This record gives sequence, structure tokens and C-alpha cells, in this order.
Amino acid sequence: MSDVVRIGVAGLGTVGAGTLALLHDNQQLLRDRCGRTVSVVAVSARDRAKDRGVELDGLRWHDDPRGLIADEDVDVVLELIGGDSGPALDLVSGALEAGKPVVTANKALIAMHGATLAGLAEKNDVALAFEAAVAGGIPIIKSLREGLAANHISRVYGILNGTCNYILTTMESTGREFDDVLAEAQSLGYAEADPTFDVDGIDTAHKLAIVSSVAFGAPVDFSSVYTAGIRGVTATDIRHASELGFRIKLLGIATISGDGIGQRVHPCMVPESSPMAHVDGAFNAVLADGDFVGRTVFEGPGAGAGPTASAVVGDLVDIARGLKIPPFGVRSSDLVSRQAVSIENRYGAYYLRLEVLDQSGVLADVAAHLRDHDVSIESVLQRGRDPGEPVSVIMTTHETFEAGLTAALKSISAFDAVVDPPCMIRIENL
Amino acid sequence: MSDVVRIGVAGLGTVGAGTLALLHDNQQLLRDRCGRTVSVVAVSARDRAKDRGVELDGLRWHDDPRGLIADEDVDVVLELIGGDSGPALDLVSGALEAGKPVVTANKALIAMHGATLAGLAEKNDVALAFEAAVAGGIPIIKSLREGLAANHISRVYGILNGTCNYILTTMESTGREFDDVLAEAQSLGYAEADPTFDVDGIDTAHKLAIVSSVAFGAPVDFSSVYTAGIRGVTATDIRHASELGFRIKLLGIATISGDGIGQRVHPCMVPESSPMAHVDGAFNAVLADGDFVGRTVFEGPGAGAGPTASAVVGDLVDIARGLKIPPFGVRSSDLVSRQAVSIENRYGAYYLRLEVLDQSGVLADVAAHLRDHDVSIESVLQRGRDPGEPVSVIMTTHETFEAGLTAALKSISAFDAVVDPPCMIRIENL
Repeated sequence: MSDVVRIGVAGLGTVGAGTLALLHDNQQLLRDRCGRTVSVVAVSARDRAKDRGVELDGLRWHDDPRGLIADEDVDVVLELIGGDSGPALDLVSGALEAGKPVVTANKALIAMHGATLAGLAEKNDVALAFEAAVAGGIPIIKSLREGLAANHISRVYGILNGTCNYILTTMESTGREFDDVLAEAQSLGYAEADPTFDVDGIDTAHKLAIVSSVAFGAPVDFSSVYTAGIRGVTATDIRHASELGFRIKLLGIATISGDGIGQRVHPCMVPESSPMAHVDGAFNAVLADGDFVGRTVFEGPGAGAGPTASAVVGDLVDIARGLKIPPFGVRSSDLVSRQAVSIENRYGAYYLRLEVLDQSGVLADVAAHLRDHDVSIESVLQRGRDPGEPVSVIMTTHETFEAGLTAALKSISAFDAVVDPPCMIRIENL
Repeated sequence: MSDVVRIGVAGLGTVGAGTLALLHDNQQLLRDRCGRTVSVVAVSARDRAKDRGVELDGLRWHDDPRGLIADEDVDVVLELIGGDSGPALDLVSGALEAGKPVVTANKALIAMHGATLAGLAEKNDVALAFEAAVAGGIPIIKSLREGLAANHISRVYGILNGTCNYILTTMESTGREFDDVLAEAQSLGYAEADPTFDVDGIDTAHKLAIVSSVAFGAPVDFSSVYTAGIRGVTATDIRHASELGFRIKLLGIATISGDGIGQRVHPCMVPESSPMAHVDGAFNAVLADGDFVGRTVFEGPGAGAGPTASAVVGDLVDIARGLKIPPFGVRSSDLVSRQAVSIENRYGAYYLRLEVLDQSGVLADVAAHLRDHDVSIESVLQRGRDPGEPVSVIMTTHETFEAGLTAALKSISAFDAVVDPPCMIRIENL
């Protein structure tokens, strides 16, 4: 191995600039830990003139990121552009084909093309690393792929999106509504101008598809992830959750069983005593259940320049040290596709909130429809309002299959006396 | 690389039997993840006749563990004997000298001889792995050495002994005294017949010395660890802690600064809101502060056959995959010894409990002595008792240097009116 590892960096946004800062500030440390010098030699970004607060003098500039592939001085490519196609995909696949190891922080890309790209990496006998794609600074990919490699993992789940967790935590602590807190998060820079990927659960689904692939040894299957975001969570529901001893979190949950792999992202009520109940603000937490190890919990900052740079350069250290492991822990040919288990098969408890007209017989009708679909009610709370106004009926159910509950809610929502679509939140005793 | 990795296992106690069970049960999984078959070919233990609940037929038996060194069929040695010298040390150093990779779960051995053995491993270009030596199934060594390798770690700390955490948690939930809970833990098999290593903090100190070496890139320095156990923690102190918003935990804390490295193990009062306050029972938790990543938290089962086997075989998977990293993350020659920072330099707050005779002027004298040593009192609580009985005076201090507090307590404990040695517990806002 050469004494210097020469890096080409594509994308100089927050993560790119943070990565350059880390490589600069911790140069000696990295040399000690890699046994080699890690040196940035080339960069690519859209705007050459922009001030990014990092020194770019002496680095070769490529207007087209694909220039890094052909650049003979570049040994390893860092893809920090983002997006599941276009320049990011061209760069990663091109670099792998050219036999250059790639480190990427791009969850969308790995969620959509992970299995193909891993195959390409293997074929060309180079590393493809994406620790930074999931849970920011938490080394969860390495932990699942290596540290816990001796275990059959039966379930991996957690809080994977800091923006949603920040919004839900703030809604809870202030009693404010979603739209209001989202607008504030946007003005503070904690949420994007277009918050769709975050608040609709897509970002969490990308990350879940990646960790479940590593945990279960299956090809990434993003298209099978059931995905619901947090737009429908109201301050009322958060207050009720609290009264019932729960907190509301957006979780990604992946499980494997004889039936196949279930992957789902949705708001959950978790008990106050759950390790996840106290993960607040922009923190992420990932839990894994292994057959020998039992339950392990990994927690840390889920996003931001520093934590993401830590993960990117951690991967770079692996490469500089000569580590070579299949990207998803087993060879592509050994990844086993499984049946996707539908959310309809979920067996668990539910929180329901119905807004109903205050007239006799409504509760009896609701209860009868639930009973007819084998849904058994655990608790009911009816909140009085001003005369003539709709009444909130809050229910929790015993454990039941989701298919039955969905069917019951469908017919209940057609009642004349039910004025809004029913609100349903899954209760997870995790 | 050969298609089979042949393992020799020395020590067939709880961990050894658990490791054999894992290697048997998860054989196909390990083959997929390693790309090779991992096969046990030889074992060594004291009593050949004992039933350990695992199949030993067809395995070569060595009465002397050192037989594994010369056994030509053995590629990798697992040292699961325990003890910081004798057969374990002979086996590990002999195997490394013979060019055989070693996996060990032996914290005492690595804490006492880690730097020497790492040098031996490097000289012979073989792996020495000890994930199982610290925090059971939590992959904390790998996380510090690889996942967080891009960071300067400034502090690493946590709950590293499940027995002590179980005892403290049970004392808190039941209000019972230490001796009583220890006796129960012994009868349940959660504590050893000789509990010294656990309850006096030595086991935690072994583990702390190992993680701090990996985190800071310094040779293991067990002899510098300030170590105090939990025998002196009373039900009274736990109750007072709770009233003050704290919980009492035995922590290992290692910090690095311009002054050097401080390593200490002692009972701490941590705020209810601390991530460590809710780590209960036999669980372990390790926290690390890195300059780019920020704070990460790792939690899981700290001991037991399954979790320890998970860590041992995780190391074995690394070896079978061809991973070769210096045991402490940098080459032995790059490990930098630092000044040991004395506990006397600690700057922080303290909880004090004095048992004093109920006579006038005692509190004034105590306060004056504290003031004379620059110790400023934050709160005082005096608990009345039956007339004539000693009175408990509970105090918390503002932040101060430990040297001053120690000197003040020394003179205070000489007062005629102070009937027991003062109880002091450090408050850590971690």
C-alpha cells in the first residue's frame, strides 16, 4: 500500500465542507490511525467562487464530478452530492467500475440502488461504504455488519430522522401544533424548505431499508417499506399519549420472521419507559435484537456537518487500513430476497381518536363495528365539549391484526356522525 | 485464505460453552458473513468429564491449554480461561509468538499486559482481539477504534459492571441495604462468591483502562486508575440522592486534556435526566465524546454467556474476513504515554453525609472548615432523630477541587462530635 491515500471529494455542501474540515484538523490523528497519510487532492462542486469556510487552494477543481473518476491522482472518491440518480449515481457507479473505492453519505442512492452498486463494488474488488447514510455519527452499519455479525438479528428499529424527532419533541414540550413547529424548524435551519422527505417519513424509510438489508442479509428493498409521516399528528394526540403514559415518536421498524421481512415507518406511541421515549431533539437511536447478544442500543447525533463527517471519514479510515468487507456484510450473491410482509399483518395495540357528533348510539355503533372485526377495546375516554360541538372519543385497543382494524375504521369513517377521518396511531411496546 | 478457519478454544466455563453454542447454532450465518467456514477443532479445559451442555465429540482435547499453540490444526486461539497471569498469559503470548491470532474475553489480562501483548501481536503480524473484555455484547472497542476513528475522543465513561449496577438498582427499588442485596445477588448467581473484583470497582477499572487506551491512543495504564467501589453506599444515601434528583451509579470515567489522562472509578450521583440514570439492572452503557461526532451512547447487556459469545465470535468474524488493525487502533510504537492526572485534581460538586452529635456549634465548625478549604456549600439538610441519637447532616457543595475537599473532610472527621467517617459521593453532571 502506498503511504498516501489521495481523496477526491464531490459535493461541497454542509457535509462536504465538514469533511474537509475534519480531514484538515485531525490530519495527524488520521495518519496515526491509518498508518498512512490521508490527503485531499481534488474536489468538485457547482460553484467555484462560493465561500465555504474551508481552504480549497492547491486542490484540483473538477466542474463535472465524473472528472474524479478519470483523475489519476484520486485513489478514493467521496460522493457527497446527494440524490438517488443523476450525477451522484453516475459518479458512484463510474468510480466503482474504474476500480476506485467509494464513500458516500447518500441514503437515497443506497436505498434505491444499493444492491446493484454493491455488486459492482464486488465485481471490481473495491470498497463501497455508506456509514454516513444512516443515523449520522452513530456507527450503526459497522456495528450490525461487524460487531454484531455473530448474531441472527430478528429486529432493528429506531428513531432515524432528527427533523421529525425535533418537531415531535418540540410539539410535546410546547403544546404547539405541527405546522407551527415545522415553520419554526424551517426558519432555524432544522428543516428543509421542502420538508417532504423528512416529515413524510421517506428519509426514515431510506435509512430503514439500508439497515434492514445489513441486519438481515437481504437486498435493499425500499419499495416495500410502508411509509407514513408525522403531518397527521396533532397536539391533542400528543397530550392524550402523555395522559396514557406514552410518547409519540416516528419510528422505522424492520422485522424478519418465517413469513418474510416487514419494514414500516410511522408515528408510534411508545411507553415512557422505552429507551426511545427519552431520545429527544435531533438525536437518533437505533436498537437491534440479536439471538445471542440480546438488545443493544446505539444513540447519537443523527445529522449535521460534524457527525456526518465523522462517519464519512470513519469509512475512509477503514479503506486506508485495507478493510474489505462486502458492503452489506455478505457477498451480493448470498443476499437472500424475502417475501415482504404487509402492514396489514401487524399484530398489536392501537390508539384511536374519533371526532363524533354528540348524539346517542354513536359509541355503541363504533364499538359494534370494532367487535365485528375482532378488535377489542381496552379503554375509552370521551371528552365533552361545548354543546353542539363534535366530541373526541379516544380509545385504545387490545392487540389485534391491522387488517381487521383497517376494515373497521373504513366502515366507521363512513358514519354520518363521524365528522373527521379517524386518527390511528400504533402502540409499540418497544 | 483457506476456506476453513480452524478454532482452538481454551476454557469451557460459561463463556466458553456459550461460544461453542453460538459457533454451532449460527454456523451457516457465519459462513455467509465470513465467506469461509468457522470450525472448532480443539478445546482445552480442566475437567474432561464435566457436562457443559455442548457437544465436544470429535474435538481434540488438550489438558494443557498451551497444547493449542503447537496444534497444527488450530489457526486461531480463543482464550476464555481468565486471570491476569498463569495459563491465560502463557497461552496468549505463546500463540502470538507462534503467529496465531488470538481472541480473548480476558479484561484483567488486557488491562495488565495489553501494551506488551499488542506489541507481540504486531511483531508477529497477527490479530489480538478483545471486544468481549469490555461491556459484554456492546461493540464498544470496534466503535472507538474504527467507527469513531476520525475523532479525537476527549472523554469516555460509563457503567461497565453489571453486578454493581444490579445491586445499586435493586437497593434503589427496594430500599434494602448493600449487604442484603449482595447476598441475594450471590444466591441468584448474579454476583461471585468472592465479589471483590466487582463491588470494589476493580473489574470496572480493568475495563476503563482498556477503553481509555483505545480512545486516547495511550498504552493501557491500569495502575493509574483511581478505584473506589460501592460497599460504602447506603440505602440512606440512595434515598437522599433520589430526593435531590439524582441516582447513584458506579461509573468509570476517563478524560484526556493538556494535563494528561485521568482515569477514575467510583460511585457517582448522576442527574435523573442523564442517559446513565436509566441504565438498570445488569445492563452496561458507554458514552464517548468526540470532537466531530459529539456524544454517542452505546448500551446493551454487559455480561453473560450469550452477549460475551457474541463479542468473541464478532472478533473471530473480523479475523476470518482478514481484518488486521493494531489492537489499540494505532501501532504500539505510536501509543503515547501521558501524565496520570490525580483524582485530587477533580473539579466538581460533592454530596456529603456526616453523622454528628446533636450539639450546638457542630454545623458552624463544619462550615468553617469547608470554607477554609474553598469549599462552598450549595445546600444543607439536617435530619432530626430521636433525642440523644446522632443527626445526619446532608450537604451538597458547589464545584470545587477535590484536594481541598479531602483536606477539609480529614479535619472534620477528627471532630469529637462527628461519630462516623464522613460519606462523600461525587456529583457528575454527565
